[in-house]
Order: sequence, then structure tokens, then C-alpha cells
Amino acid sequence: MSSAERIPVAILGATGAVGQTFIRLLNGHPWFRVAEVAASERSAGKSYAEATRWIEGEMPQDVAALTVKACDTAVVSSPVVFSALDAAAAGDLEPAFARAGRVVLSNAKNFRMTADVPLVIPEVNAAHLGLIAAQRTAHGWTGAIVTNANCAATVAAMAMAPLHEKFRLKQVIVTTLQAISGAGYPGVPSLDILGNTIPFIGGEEEEKIEREMQKMLGTLEGSAIVGAPFVVSAHVNRVPVENGHTVCLSMSFETKPTVADAIATIRAWKGDPSSLGLPSSPATALRYRDEADRPQPRRDAMDGKGMTVSVGRLREDPIMQLRMVAMGHNTIRGAAGGSILNAEVLVNSGVISRNARA
Amino acid sequence: MSSAERIPVAILGATGAVGQTFIRLLNGHPWFRVAEVAASERSAGKSYAEATRWIEGEMPQDVAALTVKACDTAVVSSPVVFSALDAAAAGDLEPAFARAGRVVLSNAKNFRMTADVPLVIPEVNAAHLGLIAAQRTAHGWTGAIVTNANCAATVAAMAMAPLHEKFRLKQVIVTTLQAISGAGYPGVPSLDILGNTIPFIGGEEEEKIEREMQKMLGTLEGSAIVGAPFVVSAHVNRVPVENGHTVCLSMSFETKPTVADAIATIRAWKGDPSSLGLPSSPATALRYRDEADRPQPRRDAMDGKGMTVSVGRLREDPIMQLRMVAMGHNTIRGAAGGSILNAEVLVNSGVISRNARA
Amino acid sequence: MSSAERIPVAILGATGAVGQTFIRLLNGHPWFRVAEVAASERSAGKSYAEATRWIEGEMPQDVAALTVKACDTAVVSSPVVFSALDAAAAGDLEPAFARAGRVVLSNAKNFRMTADVPLVIPEVNAAHLGLIAAQRTAHGWTGAIVTNANCAATVAAMAMAPLHEKFRLKQVIVTTLQAISGAGYPGVPSLDILGNTIPFIGGEEEEKIEREMQKMLGTLEGSAIVGAPFVVSAHVNRVPVENGHTVCLSMSFETKPTVADAIATIRAWKGDPSSLGLPSSPATALRYRDEADRPQPRRDAMDGKGMTVSVGRLREDPIMQLRMVAMGHNTIRGAAGGSILNAEVLVNSGVISRNARA
Amino acid sequence: MSSAERIPVAILGATGAVGQTFIRLLNGHPWFRVAEVAASERSAGKSYAEATRWIEGEMPQDVAALTVKACDTAVVSSPVVFSALDAAAAGDLEPAFARAGRVVLSNAKNFRMTADVPLVIPEVNAAHLGLIAAQRTAHGWTGAIVTNANCAATVAAMAMAPLHEKFRLKQVIVTTLQAISGAGYPGVPSLDILGNTIPFIGGEEEEKIEREMQKMLGTLEGSAIVGAPFVVSAHVNRVPVENGHTVCLSMSFETKPTVADAIATIRAWKGDPSSLGLPSSPATALRYRDEADRPQPRRDAMDGKGMTVSVGRLREDPIMQLRMVAMGHNTIRGAAGGSILNAEVLVNSGVISRNARA
Repeated sequence: MSSAERIPVAILGATGAVGQTFIRLLNGHPWFRVAEVAASERSAGKSYAEATRWIEGEMPQDVAALTVKACDTAVVSSPVVFSALDAAAAGDLEPAFARAGRVVLSNAKNFRMTADVPLVIPEVNAAHLGLIAAQRTAHGWTGAIVTNANCAATVAAMAMAPLHEKFRLKQVIVTTLQAISGAGYPGVPSLDILGNTIPFIGGEEEEKIEREMQKMLGTLEGSAIVGAPFVVSAHVNRVPVENGHTVCLSMSFETKPTVADAIATIRAWKGDPSSLGLPSSPATALRYRDEADRPQPRRDAMDGKGMTVSVGRLREDPIMQLRMVAMGHNTIRGAAGGSILNAEVLVNSGVISRNARA
Repeated sequence: MSSAERIPVAILGATGAVGQTFIRLLNGHPWFRVAEVAASERSAGKSYAEATRWIEGEMPQDVAALTVKACDTAVVSSPVVFSALDAAAAGDLEPAFARAGRVVLSNAKNFRMTADVPLVIPEVNAAHLGLIAAQRTAHGWTGAIVTNANCAATVAAMAMAPLHEKFRLKQVIVTTLQAISGAGYPGVPSLDILGNTIPFIGGEEEEKIEREMQKMLGTLEGSAIVGAPFVVSAHVNRVPVENGHTVCLSMSFETKPTVADAIATIRAWKGDPSSLGLPSSPATALRYRDEADRPQPRRDAMDGKGMTVSVGRLREDPIMQLRMVAMGHNTIRGAAGGSILNAEVLVNSGVISRNARA
Repeated sequence: MSSAERIPVAILGATGAVGQTFIRLLNGHPWFRVAEVAASERSAGKSYAEATRWIEGEMPQDVAALTVKACDTAVVSSPVVFSALDAAAAGDLEPAFARAGRVVLSNAKNFRMTADVPLVIPEVNAAHLGLIAAQRTAHGWTGAIVTNANCAATVAAMAMAPLHEKFRLKQVIVTTLQAISGAGYPGVPSLDILGNTIPFIGGEEEEKIEREMQKMLGTLEGSAIVGAPFVVSAHVNRVPVENGHTVCLSMSFETKPTVADAIATIRAWKGDPSSLGLPSSPATALRYRDEADRPQPRRDAMDGKGMTVSVGRLREDPIMQLRMVAMGHNTIRGAAGGSILNAEVLVNSGVISRNARA
Repeated sequence: MSSAERIPVAILGATGAVGQTFIRLLNGHPWFRVAEVAASERSAGKSYAEATRWIEGEMPQDVAALTVKACDTAVVSSPVVFSALDAAAAGDLEPAFARAGRVVLSNAKNFRMTADVPLVIPEVNAAHLGLIAAQRTAHGWTGAIVTNANCAATVAAMAMAPLHEKFRLKQVIVTTLQAISGAGYPGVPSLDILGNTIPFIGGEEEEKIEREMQKMLGTLEGSAIVGAPFVVSAHVNRVPVENGHTVCLSMSFETKPTVADAIATIRAWKGDPSSLGLPSSPATALRYRDEADRPQPRRDAMDGKGMTVSVGRLREDPIMQLRMVAMGHNTIRGAAGGSILNAEVLVNSGVISRNARA
């Protein structure tokens, strides 16, 4: 579609760190155009440039000039809504927008585990978007809510997906090293993290990883997701890294693969066909690296423009069966970029109309 | 003993990072006096001040003035020898010193797994020092070699010791976040680690953790150590932290303790009586912390002057039985401080004579 | 004085970063005992342990058990008050405490430049404490307010003091590299400073350095300070360092010293006799280091338990006359430790009574 | 020119940090093609992939497959040679290549101050390339050596250029905060710089800045450069930043500009016309930023793909006349990118032939 015909989208929570990442990633997007930015009452009425402490790179000029709106269905008219709202706000606002006929792509945690809300990584479980029909029926909505997962859960789920598909995961112990950008802005005080690590992340980070992986790797049966029956145990750590969450994984499967089989399976995996060839699709969704000391966040997080998850060091585990390391960009693949890829799949499947206009 | 009567000790590999830590920790020690510093031929003959790029704090003035000797039993005469040699040099030199009647306290990896060499954390397995008699008999030595473990293995073994004693550890998965000082100086290039993490440490770091924990938590039966029969799986990571190795532990036991039992067991643990009340003994060898986000290396590594290992976040694990986090100072408890504590135990047990003179 | 007889002191703003530093430094102090902690209404009534997110090391147990009071002269009764209040609160509260007969040692910026308020580094300008008489007369106070300077100004003023005394400073250009702890807690977000530097610090940091150096290096004439007539130009930068402000100085003097003279002058300087031999006095207030690459914050900030300012690289300057680098601990020498040293001088001079009781 | 017709170039010192930056920046270059990589004897004969510890991003596949050659004119045949040699090697090798008819673009310090060698930032002093004729005559070379400056000098010289052109700089005090990548790989040990700053950089960094700025801002008169008559004083600091050197500048001019004039002059400046519109030319060579807290290395270093120098905080100085802050990418604008831009100018001016073939 031509530039003039791009689908108008709104960003809710546009002034925060995740909101800014949406705006950076949508800058020059071939299908979507940031038509509206919305934030708290405190920012509403100001220009976006004035309301926002921009964190990374340059603010796109067309967005800088937009007037920030309130997060209200009466004033925000775009048919597609990317939600970077925090949990306190998302609970009421996201259903309101869905009720008002908008397709809401959400980063918030509120509805991820709701039975009729798809929690989607397109390469892994695009089929779960089939829940939208049930969701609409149940609530009488013409819009919808589609969520993406916790950033660490996303990295782990993508890395596990090909192995789970083929060998059926039984148990996985996930120990994370998570970047500071995962906590938003201002987020982690520098006095807490400079030259330090913290073995805890608030907001039930470990619980989210444990339950969201089960849902994402589960299956859509009828109009419900049946969670994958494996067990997840998570230890989380915050580390002084800007972007890129690392997860160390110890895994056991119903059918134990050899190391060579497991690596070949990861290398051969393409992900769901509906996820391929979209504007935000990386050439390689999952890259297995042979170097002994990779993946590393500073070197690999931007692989595939931040949409590739990198895996390495797959080897035997003397307690479980296999162990490996995975790493992905937490604010791109694990947040805003993931939402945008979800939206692109929904355009292709017709849930979002190419002719949608405010 | 009065200051004039302190036991003279030599430091082998005195100019490197571990050697410097020995010198810092022995500065003002009530029992030991750094009488000799020895290093490679390149440094021999220079003053210590001239030969050394001192890394942390101020160089003790009496040591600065010493002339660096070659690592040769003919020129180094102290009865007690702390070895900060690298593996390439330790293999020949440490046995030479033991043969020459010296008690060698070694940080090198070479002899840690040798059957008749004790691998000791005094609080955990001081009884293993009983191997010295067998070692002397076997080699016809009047001296001895006593080793301490890999720094990450030390932290993990101390944290596991009370639980293993009471509940018999079966399996433990150890994921580490290790400080840069563990790699010595110059060690890790800043371009590799600033704002980054590396999921790998060379020199068989993972294998060392796996096998050294078994030996240290094993038992002395007759004149041999029977390794503990549990299985260890290690993932290692380097993180941009100066000092303090963190280990995330997932554990299963023969008898599953409750969380409360496990915490109480850790809190009640004092360690081997022979390890208590020595100049380098911390008031609390193992400290359980209640805060949700501790231990942290920058805040807790210097607890007990670097000799206390901190533990926290002990909780149920859905796959194994329990999980927790432990952290300790890698160059003090995990290296030079551990060696010095070993030497203090040997003074009290008479292996090192209080009247020893060069 | 015996432990039971120590002078009771109160900390205002006790829960914040500077307040915590007061409590750490006063732990075990031979003359002062933390008898009261006061903070905002939000914290009042809670135990100090409950009200405080403790940042560094362990909270002293006797203070942990204190109940936080409101910052009110009616409920805080200690005769000596260390103020870690922020500027918004200090403006009203510090005079109220002085009026109520308390000696207030303040870190806040509010009254530093007030004509009858001494701005003191004891080694540099203890004589300025003579202003207290005029201050009491002017306001009818029985108490007093004594301030210490901006942390970067303190480091620069101490480094300049011996040279100014002897050669009369005319101009100095100060470029700083300032640690994150200078901004308090939570202070600088990690996303702003990790792997980054910021060429600006809010709150008129540059102006404070420029004017406070003139006042501190000025002279008490009659009942007023005549500012030193030199000109200061400051550039400030925030850097990812935990503690220790570095200042690069380019200087010209009325009488140009040789490099050798200048170094000898710094080395010979002891500071005002009234500042020597106190509990918080460092053995060496100003240490000149010969190494080409020092001082460095991580290696030198804790010199003299954080009370020594380190100087190095004094050399010719092709534009001004001389240039050098100085570095000191910003929250110890440049904040809480400086206040405590001021109080110690006031005990010795009788302004604070050794028999003072609440 | 078509891809097949790109000019073949060789990289000397190709395996090091600067060499790698050349290869990254030349990947996909429209005019140049990396045809040869050369390095020390130790690497010669291996594939580039095998010989190189690649630091950032992915190694271009076509270069990975090249066989590393010795740095010898007999085996390296490309007409254009980018030299990332260290000073020990450059002294002999660069003249040898020039003698052999190659155009050598050098990052080494050896010949920067040589009278007949141009030291060039194209926007600033492209006219100095006129020295090549004299250089060829003097040495009887058919090739040439063209150098670019020390990375910090480059940032300072670009920021000063428009002001010097218009107001004639008299004096400038430069205090730097320099990134670790400036020291190459392995370069600065992490134990030296993590959470620390170092007020010194070896290799006469300060002297280089002082003299190279004078040469670059000097004028070509006849066949010689007359250095600019201003005086430079430099203080250097290493800081824990990956890329981007910051320079704080205090300046006086023959004609004192107002702040507004100075900012307008910077904004209006385009640089030498011959530097514009080339493949590596940034849209804006010098960007003045209005934000109070910019430029910052992590946020601004990649502006203009690393070729834009950012300036901010221009304000009155109470001692000199004006002060400001400038920041640029040290390994792109300040090293490899600068060399490539020099080469592009030489293609346009005919010194490098578009038809050049090995």
C-alpha cells in the first residue's frame, strides 16, 4: 500500500519507554502510520515532543508534532491500537478500546492469561489468533485484544518452540540475566545496578515466565488454549546490560534428542508460515550460533533488527537432558516489535482491514 | 604470638592479581608475615613495587620494598608458601616446594582433584586435611600441598553444605553470574564486558564447578576422599561486576526439607569447629538474608571482610525441590582468603609449626 | 568521653542517601551517638528499618530499631542536628532548629551562600566558624547553622587551598567527572548513565561550584566573609562511577609557581590545626600521587576512609599556568563526612558542648 | 560504478579493532570493495575468519573467506590501501606502499605531523590534500600517504572549525572523556575501567590533540601547512563508554562572538564543498543540539551513521570567552570512517582513479 494509504494506528502510553519503542519501530513502516499518540491526563494536550523525555536516538519529526491525546475511545479514533499502558491503566482501557471496535495489540500483563485472549509470538503460535472469534462472541466486541508475552518468556518460548514441537518438552529450568530496559524508564536506579546484579525482579516476573511459556506453547483446541503440560521453573536476575535478555535453559523432553538433532532442529525451524515475509519478520527468527561464547546481548541483540532470537551452547546436561543459552532483544522482539509483528499477521489474515480508516 | 614472632610466608606468583590479594589480606595478619615474594624470571631481582602493577588500594610498604625472588626452592626459604601461580607453572613448582618441606597453600587448579591432595573450605570439610599424612607417605614429602577450590564452586559448596549434611543432596543445577576479577589481570577486556554478559568462561569453568563440589562435600574414608554422590550441572556467565560471584541453585535432596527447615538449617550452621575463631574466620560463615532482592555482589560481597557467603530467596522449586541464590567474594573467600584460612587451621592443628622459621 | 556519654545527635532526612551515609559514618563514632532519626511525614512513626531502603552495607542495628520522627523541633530534641534534607525542606526547617538552640550541620544548598552562614571545610577555612557569633547575634539564635559545600566544589577547593594560600589563585577552569551517588537515590536512572556520560547536572551545579569555591577560599574579615577574588569556570559531567568526583583543573596564579614548588606545597600542606587529630580527620587530608594515571575514583576514593582528597598529574599548562587532577569521595568528604568533621571541630571549640544532652 | 567495477582496496592491520571497523564500514560500499586483508606474519595464510576475533556485529561473509596476506607490497596489489597498522609497523610499511604506487589512507600516528603529509578531515581542510603533489615530488612516489587525526583531536577540530574560520581561535582548553574503543582490542582491561575513570591515556594522547588541531586548522601555503597560531591545552580521561569521545571546550577568539552568533555559525556550517554528497558524508557534519544535557555518547555517537559530530551547551565562559561540549564517534568519524571519507574525496579529485585495478 502506498504511503498515503497506510493504516492509521494509535499508541497508548506513548510517552513511556515501550511507547517510544513503538514509535521508533513504526517510523517508516510500510503498512502502519502513527496517527495518534495518547498518554496520561498529565501529558494530554501537549505536543508529543514537549510531553516526552525521549530516550534513544532521534524522535521522528512527524510524531514529535502530534498533540498527545487522552487514552479515551472518544478521542482516539485509529482502528489499530498499540498498548504500552502499564498494568494499572490497561485493565480498564484495553477492553474499552476492544469494545469500541479497535484491534488492541497489548504489552501489558493484564489479559495475557485470560482464557479467550491470544498470547502470541507469530512464529510460535499464530494459530492462537483463532481465539479472536471466541473473544468477540463472548464479549460482543467488534474489536479484539491480542497480547504478547513477558520479554523473558518470549525469548525462552521462541528458543524452546522447535524442540518442543518435535521432542515434547517435559521440564525446563530457566535462569535469566535481564537488561535494565525491561524495567522501563526511569526504571532501575543506577545506584542499584552499576557494577552489580540483582537476583530478583518485582511484579511476579518468575511467575509470568512460568505460566506464559505454557500458554504460548499450548494448543488451540476448539475455542480454548490447552496449556502445554511441561513444568517451568524460573530464577530471574537483573544485570547491567542495556538491551537483551539472556536465558540459561536446562531441559528434559519426552523423547530425548541428541545434541546434534536438537541443533539441527533449531536450525531447520522457520516458524509458522503466516509469520514469514512480513515487514517486521527477521530473515532468521531463531539463529543457532556455533561460537563458544555467544549469544551475548551487546553483540547479538540487534540481530534481525532486534527480532532474531539467538541460541548457543546446546550441550548435554547431566541432570536434565540438554542445556543451552538463548538471548533476544527485550524491548523489540520481547515487546513493541512483537506487537507490531502480531498486527502484521492480523492484516494478512484480514482481522485488521487494509482499508481501515479512523 | 608477637609481631616479631610471626611465621614467615612466601607468595609465589606475587605480582599477579591473586598474589596481590594475598598481600592485601596478609597485611597486619597476627600470625603470618610476608617475608618473601616470588614471581617469574622477568620480575626477579626487581623490587616488588617496581615489578608490580598494583590493582586495588595501597601496596603495603614493607612488601613494596622486598626484592622479588625467582620461584625456586633454593632461594625461597619460608616454611609456608601461598601459591598464586598459574596452572602452567604450578604443576612443577608446587610439588617441588612440598618436597622441600614447605606447606603449600594453592589456588591453582592443577592438584585440586588429585586423590591425596585435600581441597578444603575449613567450615565445610576441614577433616579432609587428614589426607596430608597419606600425601606425605606416598611422596616422601615433609611438606604438603593443600588446595582451595574454584571460586564459584566454593560459593556453591558453602551454600549447599548445611543442607547436604542434613538432607543429602541428590542433584543441583548451578547457574552462575561471575565477576570479572575472577579472570585475573588484565583478564577480561572492557570491550567484551562493558554493558554485556558472556555465557561462557574458558578453562573448563563448568567442569571444575561440577567435580570440585563433589570432592569438597565428599567424605574422608581411610586415606581417600569418597566424592559425594550427587550430580551437579553448571551454566556459567561472566557479568560486569568487579567482585562477587552469584550462583542460582536448583536442588533436590534424598529427604526433601521444607523451606522453613532449609532456612533454619542454614541459619543454625556454624561449620567445622576447627574453622572457628581464627584470624580470618568471619563471625558468620553463611548468612541467610530475608530481603527479597539479596544477596547482591556490590552490597554483600564484603560481608565478613569478604569471607561470609550470603544466601537468599530460598523457595520451592516446581521441578527440583528447592531453589535459592548464593553469593560470595571470589578473590577473598573464593581464593586468597580461603587459602589463608586453610593455613590458619593448619597452624592450630600443628601441621604448620608456630615456631617455623626459614 | 565514654560510650554512655556520647553526645546525642539527630539526623534530619535520615532515610535518604545522604542520611544513610551519616548513619554509616556515625556508627561507632567516639563522640556522637545517633539518638534520633527524622524524615518526612510519610515515614514518621515507622521503625527506621521499615521506613528505609538501605543502600550500602548493613544498617546499624541500634538505628534500625529507632522510630522515625517528624522533622519538628518539638519532637526532635538532640542538641546536634545533621541535616540531609533536600532544598525544599531545608529552607524552613534548618532555621527553626537553629532558633530552637540546636547546632545544625547542613548538606543542603539553601544557606551556603548566606552571608552569616559559614561554608566550611575544616582544613581549609575553619576560621570561618567565627561567623557563628555574628549569626547568633543577627537572628537571636542560641543554635547555629553551619554548612558544607557542593561535593565537587569541596574536592576542588581542597586541592586548590595550599596553592591559593601561597601563590594566590587568579583563574581556574574546573571540568568535572561526577559520580552517580552525588544525585542521591533513586537519582540517575540506569538507562541514562550505563555506558554513557552526561555533560550536564541540574540544580545549577556549575554555578554552585563557581561561587562556593570563592566563599570557602575567602577570608573572614570582621563578621563577614570576603570572597576570594579569583574567577572559576566549571563544566560538569556525570559519569558511570559509584563514588568519587574527579576534577580537572587549569589554573593561573598571581605568582606562578614551578611544577616542583606546587607539588611540594601540596605535599607540605596540613590544613588548619583545628582540623587535625579529630575522629574523622584523615592522616593526610591531601595526598599527591606520583603515578601517571591517578587519582582514580574506584582506587582512591576510600583513601583516608573517604576523607582524603587525592591529587595528581600536576604539570605546566600552555594557556593557564598549571593543570592537575583532583579526586575525592563525594558522599563522605563531599557531604556527610565533611559535616561530621565540622561538628567535631565545633566540639573542640566549645560551640557544641561535650555535656550536651537532649 | 557497478558492483563489479568497484575499486579494490586492501586493509593493512585488518584483524585488529580499527581494521575490523574498516571492514564493517566498507561492507556494501558503492565505490570500494575489500579485495585484500593483510596482517602480521602470525595471521598470514589463515582465512580472515580464522585469524580474527571479530568484535562487533557479524563479519561480512565475503571478507571472512579471504586469505590473510602479509603486509608486503609484493603480495598486496590493491591500488588503495587503508592502514590500521600500529605505530611500530606503520613507520616502514606505509612509505613502502606509497613508493609502490598505492594511495595509503592511514590511521597511524607516525606521519600525521610530517610536513608533506596531509592530516585531513575533508569538511575542515580538504585543501590540505594539495600537499600530495609536493609529497610525490619530494619522495619520487607515485602513490601517497594521507592521514587522519587522533580521534579526540578530530572531534575537537570539527567542532572548532566553523568558529575558527570566522572568529580566529586564540586559545582552547580541551578536557576529554574518551571511550574504551579508542584503545583498540583487547585494550583497556575491565578491572581498570568498570565503574571507574582514568585521568590519563598513554602514547602522548594530550600532545597529539594539542599539535594535530593546529595542523588541521592550519592553512596550505605553497607546498607547506602553516599551523594555526592558536594554543591548545588538553586534559584527557578514559571513561567506561563503548564508543564516542566527549570534549569539553573553553575557548577564546580574536573576535569574541556572542553565544547566538557562535551557535548560528555552527548551524550554518557545511564544510568544504568537496566533502559533500559522498557515500560516507553525513547529511549534517556538525549538529548543534539544544537540549541541556546533550550530546551524550550512547545517544548521539551514531548520528549520521557515526560521521556527525554533535555540539551542545555553548555558553559564556567567565575566564575564556565561550565554552561548549562536542562529541563524536571515535572509531567511525575519528578513525576508519574518516579515512574512507578521505579516500572518497580523492576519488572525486582524481588522485584515486575510478578505473584503478590491482
